[in-house]
Amino acid sequence: MEKMIYYFGEGNKDMKGLLGGKGANLNEMKNLEIPVPPGFTITTEVCDAYYKNDKKLPEGLMSEVKKNVEKVEKELGKEFGGDDPLLFSVRSGAAVSMPGMMDTVLNLGLNEKTVKALIEKTKNPRFAYDSYRRFIQMFSNVVLGIDMSEFELILDRKKETKGVELDTELDADDLKEVAEEYKKMLKEKHNINFPEDPYEQLEKAIEAVFGSWNNDRAITYRRIHDIKGLLGTAVNVQAMVFGNMGENSGTGVAFTRNPSTGENKFYGEFLMNAQGEDVVAGIRTPQPISELEKTMPKVYKQLVEIYKKLENHYKDMQDMEFTIQEGKLYLLQTRTGKRTAHAALKIAVDMVEEGLIDKKTAVMRIDPNSLDQLLHKRLDEVAKEKMKEEGALLAKGLPASPGAAVGKVVFNAETAKEWADGGEKVILVRTETSPEDIEGMNAAEGILTARGGMTSHAAVVARGMGICCVAGCSDITVNEEEGYFRAKDLTVKEGEYITLDGNTGEVMKGEIPTVDPDISGDFGKLMGWADSFRKLQVKTNADTPQDAQRAKDFGAEGIGLCRTEHMFFEGERIKAVREMILSKTPEERKKALDKIEPYQQEDFEGLFKVMDGLPVIIRLLDPPLHEFLPKEEEDIEALAKEMNISAQEIKDIVAEMHEFNPMLGFRGCRLGVQYPEINAMQARAILKAAMKVKEEGANPVPWIEVPLVGHVKELKLIKEIVEREAEMLGVKGKIDYKIGTMIEVPRAAITADEMAEEADFMSFGTNDLTQMGCGFSRDDAGKFLGKYVEYNIYEKDPFQSIDQNGVGKLMQICIEGARKTKPDMHIGICGEHGGEPESVKFCHKIGLNEVSCSPFRVPIARLAAAQAAIEDEE
Amino acid sequence: MEKMIYYFGEGNKDMKGLLGGKGANLNEMKNLEIPVPPGFTITTEVCDAYYKNDKKLPEGLMSEVKKNVEKVEKELGKEFGGDDPLLFSVRSGAAVSMPGMMDTVLNLGLNEKTVKALIEKTKNPRFAYDSYRRFIQMFSNVVLGIDMSEFELILDRKKETKGVELDTELDADDLKEVAEEYKKMLKEKHNINFPEDPYEQLEKAIEAVFGSWNNDRAITYRRIHDIKGLLGTAVNVQAMVFGNMGENSGTGVAFTRNPSTGENKFYGEFLMNAQGEDVVAGIRTPQPISELEKTMPKVYKQLVEIYKKLENHYKDMQDMEFTIQEGKLYLLQTRTGKRTAHAALKIAVDMVEEGLIDKKTAVMRIDPNSLDQLLHKRLDEVAKEKMKEEGALLAKGLPASPGAAVGKVVFNAETAKEWADGGEKVILVRTETSPEDIEGMNAAEGILTARGGMTSHAAVVARGMGICCVAGCSDITVNEEEGYFRAKDLTVKEGEYITLDGNTGEVMKGEIPTVDPDISGDFGKLMGWADSFRKLQVKTNADTPQDAQRAKDFGAEGIGLCRTEHMFFEGERIKAVREMILSKTPEERKKALDKIEPYQQEDFEGLFKVMDGLPVIIRLLDPPLHEFLPKEEEDIEALAKEMNISAQEIKDIVAEMHEFNPMLGFRGCRLGVQYPEINAMQARAILKAAMKVKEEGANPVPWIEVPLVGHVKELKLIKEIVEREAEMLGVKGKIDYKIGTMIEVPRAAITADEMAEEADFMSFGTNDLTQMGCGFSRDDAGKFLGKYVEYNIYEKDPFQSIDQNGVGKLMQICIEGARKTKPDMHIGICGEHGGEPESVKFCHKIGLNEVSCSPFRVPIARLAAAQAAIEDEE
Repeated sequence: MEKMIYYFGEGNKDMKGLLGGKGANLNEMKNLEIPVPPGFTITTEVCDAYYKNDKKLPEGLMSEVKKNVEKVEKELGKEFGGDDPLLFSVRSGAAVSMPGMMDTVLNLGLNEKTVKALIEKTKNPRFAYDSYRRFIQMFSNVVLGIDMSEFELILDRKKETKGVELDTELDADDLKEVAEEYKKMLKEKHNINFPEDPYEQLEKAIEAVFGSWNNDRAITYRRIHDIKGLLGTAVNVQAMVFGNMGENSGTGVAFTRNPSTGENKFYGEFLMNAQGEDVVAGIRTPQPISELEKTMPKVYKQLVEIYKKLENHYKDMQDMEFTIQEGKLYLLQTRTGKRTAHAALKIAVDMVEEGLIDKKTAVMRIDPNSLDQLLHKRLDEVAKEKMKEEGALLAKGLPASPGAAVGKVVFNAETAKEWADGGEKVILVRTETSPEDIEGMNAAEGILTARGGMTSHAAVVARGMGICCVAGCSDITVNEEEGYFRAKDLTVKEGEYITLDGNTGEVMKGEIPTVDPDISGDFGKLMGWADSFRKLQVKTNADTPQDAQRAKDFGAEGIGLCRTEHMFFEGERIKAVREMILSKTPEERKKALDKIEPYQQEDFEGLFKVMDGLPVIIRLLDPPLHEFLPKEEEDIEALAKEMNISAQEIKDIVAEMHEFNPMLGFRGCRLGVQYPEINAMQARAILKAAMKVKEEGANPVPWIEVPLVGHVKELKLIKEIVEREAEMLGVKGKIDYKIGTMIEVPRAAITADEMAEEADFMSFGTNDLTQMGCGFSRDDAGKFLGKYVEYNIYEKDPFQSIDQNGVGKLMQICIEGARKTKPDMHIGICGEHGGEPESVKFCHKIGLNEVSCSPFRVPIARLAAAQAAIEDEE
Repeated sequence: MEKMIYYFGEGNKDMKGLLGGKGANLNEMKNLEIPVPPGFTITTEVCDAYYKNDKKLPEGLMSEVKKNVEKVEKELGKEFGGDDPLLFSVRSGAAVSMPGMMDTVLNLGLNEKTVKALIEKTKNPRFAYDSYRRFIQMFSNVVLGIDMSEFELILDRKKETKGVELDTELDADDLKEVAEEYKKMLKEKHNINFPEDPYEQLEKAIEAVFGSWNNDRAITYRRIHDIKGLLGTAVNVQAMVFGNMGENSGTGVAFTRNPSTGENKFYGEFLMNAQGEDVVAGIRTPQPISELEKTMPKVYKQLVEIYKKLENHYKDMQDMEFTIQEGKLYLLQTRTGKRTAHAALKIAVDMVEEGLIDKKTAVMRIDPNSLDQLLHKRLDEVAKEKMKEEGALLAKGLPASPGAAVGKVVFNAETAKEWADGGEKVILVRTETSPEDIEGMNAAEGILTARGGMTSHAAVVARGMGICCVAGCSDITVNEEEGYFRAKDLTVKEGEYITLDGNTGEVMKGEIPTVDPDISGDFGKLMGWADSFRKLQVKTNADTPQDAQRAKDFGAEGIGLCRTEHMFFEGERIKAVREMILSKTPEERKKALDKIEPYQQEDFEGLFKVMDGLPVIIRLLDPPLHEFLPKEEEDIEALAKEMNISAQEIKDIVAEMHEFNPMLGFRGCRLGVQYPEINAMQARAILKAAMKVKEEGANPVPWIEVPLVGHVKELKLIKEIVEREAEMLGVKGKIDYKIGTMIEVPRAAITADEMAEEADFMSFGTNDLTQMGCGFSRDDAGKFLGKYVEYNIYEKDPFQSIDQNGVGKLMQICIEGARKTKPDMHIGICGEHGGEPESVKFCHKIGLNEVSCSPFRVPIARLAAAQAAIEDEE
């Protein structure tokens, strides 16, 4: 530790790690000759040393503090604890903003002596005593750990005695008495002599700020916001300035642009004769910043100059705090302003057009995750707040799929479909959803489930469909049979209206107005820039022409994953599928498959047409067959009747198909090894569809993908089945098809050099690769994964963001092996991770060719891919 | 293909790949100047070319054949198809013996002309016509594909007409007529003119032998015996000699030593005036070889000289075929003789002591798998055969654990325990076993289950305990409640005697005498030699002092895996375990754990005492907790009563604990992350046991092992729990304990460099590593893994022998990573693979330090490890 303290101006904005965000910017503003009250920053290294030193300040720190205090004294001509008393604020400030999480002490330096000196100097006893009692209160709370309520009690008693309601109605004498009573209470109740020595006050305040770095709420905040790798907090000791010294004093907050809309217009509010905490307390209503021009035109002009200087200097929208003390303007803070997704987009694009930043910077400025908000319908916030105030909020679940949904409640997929076909807007409410609900889910405006996490069936399917979903809403209990759900003490019946907010997980009674997504020109512009930088191809996961079209509109460059089984559930098909599963001989099975084939062909034709000229990766049948069989007694009976066999027979088959670990069971290419006729049918349907679409003048590019391959010989075997069909159909040389493999089984990744001998392309199924690689069942891990993330064993839920260190290494081993055999092997990723920005960036880094994700995540992936490429360049 | 044919003497014994075993040895015998009928070998390369050439003989082959035939003609002074007719045998012969699987044609060269010449020459028309009709029959069957029964019909009719019973009772004229009728039948029924041209006969016979390489039974044989990588079969064309030319002719088979006992004494049998097939037909009883000395002393003396020469030359016990034609001895074949496990051991040790081979060769001569037979009780074969003839055989299942068992049938674990305690020998018969049956299994002589494969619970546990087990015996149906099982039409009730043969899977009614294992001095000698060569340490999987002691007697150098959960089931403990699981608070859980702790400590004390001075690897609790809860209604009720809660409450907890994929669920170290108090209790029990045993003067070496680790931070967390207990108990510096990790999760293998930072040692759990690495649930894979092995996707069942190419690569990645961090990291393997010879050899190859296996597999592992080291040297 070379240097423990930076006097403002000794540091600069790039020293956030050492000085914290606030400190670095105070230093920078000083360098820019912007008026900031003098002071100094104690570095985060000192905080680190404090903790390493068993919570003791490092030796020599206080003598350094004294030197810097003396510099401030000299600069202001005041004296710390003297006759023209210098007062300090002592504030925390880490490299990453953690608003309200750590402690602050204001007015430090006041004592029995200096409070009188302050009166002498300001001729304002009320101001002085008010400052004094505030200081005692704050210091006692922050430094001495005394509960705030003990002080409030004394203050309330005083107001009662005086018969007034507001603090402002107490006069100087009252406040003096209050201060005295505070100190008396400390002495009598806690045996504490409130420290008189300003340096003792300062030392204790510095310690307290360091201590607050590891208070519970700060730790929680860092965990929730995934803030890691910081040394600690810096401490900013700064001369106090007062906005409450009369009518030519004031305080305010301003943004260089509108943080809600992004409009390039100075924005903010201020309050005359007030301190920052008065603004927060909300007792007086602040005025818009434009009013300041009338009240104090000179100060306003200076503030405008400053904000322009700051924005120009930082090249980003700034959020500033200022205080006017007796007509003199001071900037207390500047930082990059938070903004809505809409504002972020507009500001980035505007700044490029203003020549302030370049396109790369603009692309880097947008959080890819925030794009989700831009692509979906959202609730009218004002209306929502109003209805919530009226008690509309029923429950809160997980924000499983973004957007908003308003509709009538239904409790099963059939009703959802029926009502939606009849023109109703419906919300499907279920304890949990299953693949049989697909059609109903598709028909609904939104989905609400009582169980299941962010990767539950409902959540995954809804995100794929771009439908708003609130999942795992344990506040509600659903009674599907009787058609109602309960939340709190309310019962919501079939047909009643509810509103879902997929961005927050809120469930509300009634209809709340929505706002359509506003994909203005700015969106297109920014995405265009992003595309010009990115190297990764972005494809989509889509099973229907509608999804494919939507994804293409969002910029998808083909289909990276078409799950053929999703097609198996629709309408009449499921009957033939079940017939196929219940077949006892290959002949029976073939007969049933012959019925499915035309449906499949039709589906593929639709996809090829939409994706004209772009690759369509079609995965052969993947899930365990028992997923297609009914589970409920009545469904089994219905099927039995239809198939003309006994219900018991079906139950026996279901029982026989039961698996202990279906995840590791009879599915994927194992189905094709056992029943080659299934894959043969699918190959025929794909290739015939391609031929037909080609005859119609389009250019189909089918890539056939084999799932759950673990051994190259499995791939070879399935490939032979496909090639045999291709041969028989005579498509060789006419259709440019490829045959590739999913990489989901760790063994496949490990033996990628062998796999590459047979595969034309590869695609990581990172969901399954995570399940097998980490040994977590996605369906069960909910029971223990919580503790894992809490204990920081996995930094992030590995099902949400690729476990780069583990699963990611498997991927790298795979890529290396595959490209050793085929240097230009095309490798991609599909599934949930393909639309998660950190994972997309990882995919870029390890040299993948493509990512594929659900349609609504396509823009997110495009942007993340661009950012990865830009970061790479840098 | 340089050379298509080797005239006997041109090749040698080392050319088995090219000439087949038979051909190579015929060539070698010629070189040794042992009398073999002249002939030549067509190479396996020709067979390969035949198949590559669309099943056509390569060009020029027949002209080469002709040249070689002429050489034989010259050598013997006979003529193929001539007046002194030369006849040939045409036999297959691959590099690996496949007895009876491929085709042979004898007496080739006979036709209407040569049969008469043969009569002229031999003056023996009956011999000539018998040879002729045999040739027609054999050729027609092998080459022309005519069913044997068609010839038998004609022969039977002839015997009927003549009123005789035996072929030998037919005279020359009869046989001549038979031959004529054969040819007539071929012509009339199949429109075939039987080929008269000897060269046409020869060409077709050669083709037929090549063709038989890929007949169904040969393919099946190769699959079953895991024979791979051969080019094809060779064809041996050899001049016929006849053992049936009168009383100074004969034929026989002999072994240079006794193949049953290994005794160094010439052994074999012969039949005068007979052909090889007569011996096989069993119509006449052959005489012991010693009788030949009396019958033909000169020939006998010559044969003794030859066998000594052969054994000395081959330096191994030989199995020879010979024919005496009119007083002249010919050797037709020599090969390494098959022998029993007992004989193999004796021969190897004897030969070392005779100075014939060195110790390394002796060690390499024993099949490690065969040791299993030597270590277990076995059935008296003679008595068994007799009882089987009397109809004792009830059913046949999988030979899941070797040995033999005789006892009274019981149908539940409690009865087994009870009866065994009362001095009865019992066999536990169940549909399938579960962990709750452990005590009963331990008390039983043998175990019989109707369901489950070679790796089912019953099989794994029985092998571990060294108890005979027949599993997956689908021929029986078990009614546990009513106390009987049915097999065929028989019912076997509780208390009736049955006998199990664990080496064959046979289940027999009644009591069959057994023979105790005879681990004579030879066994100890050979294992001593093995130990002097091996590099791998061999430890055992053992959970009880008894198992540990047995394993130590078998040479185990410590415990490589103690599964603590096995201890949880015994007696009163399970109650406390269930109490622990049903606990609602950490306090309740601690209270229950306090009850378990003394039991655990006692267990560990026992193990430390037995393994005094040797490491004992103790794995912390691994299985999902729901495994400890009862499943049956009545057990639930009993538990509810005992715990004073409602049955419904227990059912709810069981339901809540249900997992979709328990294999990938809440188990292993995940239990300890969630409930640290469990691992803390186990750590205390281990360390307190070590302290106690140490105080008693022994030297405990506890290695504590964390299961199912996927992330280094899990290991770190559990390690901290253990270290905390160690600290509190004050064992630091007193007990030399280590803390290591299982490597079962692919992620752990991939990140071994990180794991090694925290682990003192590592042990592969290859069962789970295979499940996750290959994505196979061991409980479910039975449904599809059959096809996988059939299609040769996996060469061997990866749960039986390590999948070296896939899972093995993961292991190699792990070892490399771990030793990068800690160059001397101790790495082992435990579980089923640790006792499988191929897997043990692989473990040696990749540089493991130890293997651990069930007690009865310890000698197998020791021998396999020695062989691996010797192979490595070479």
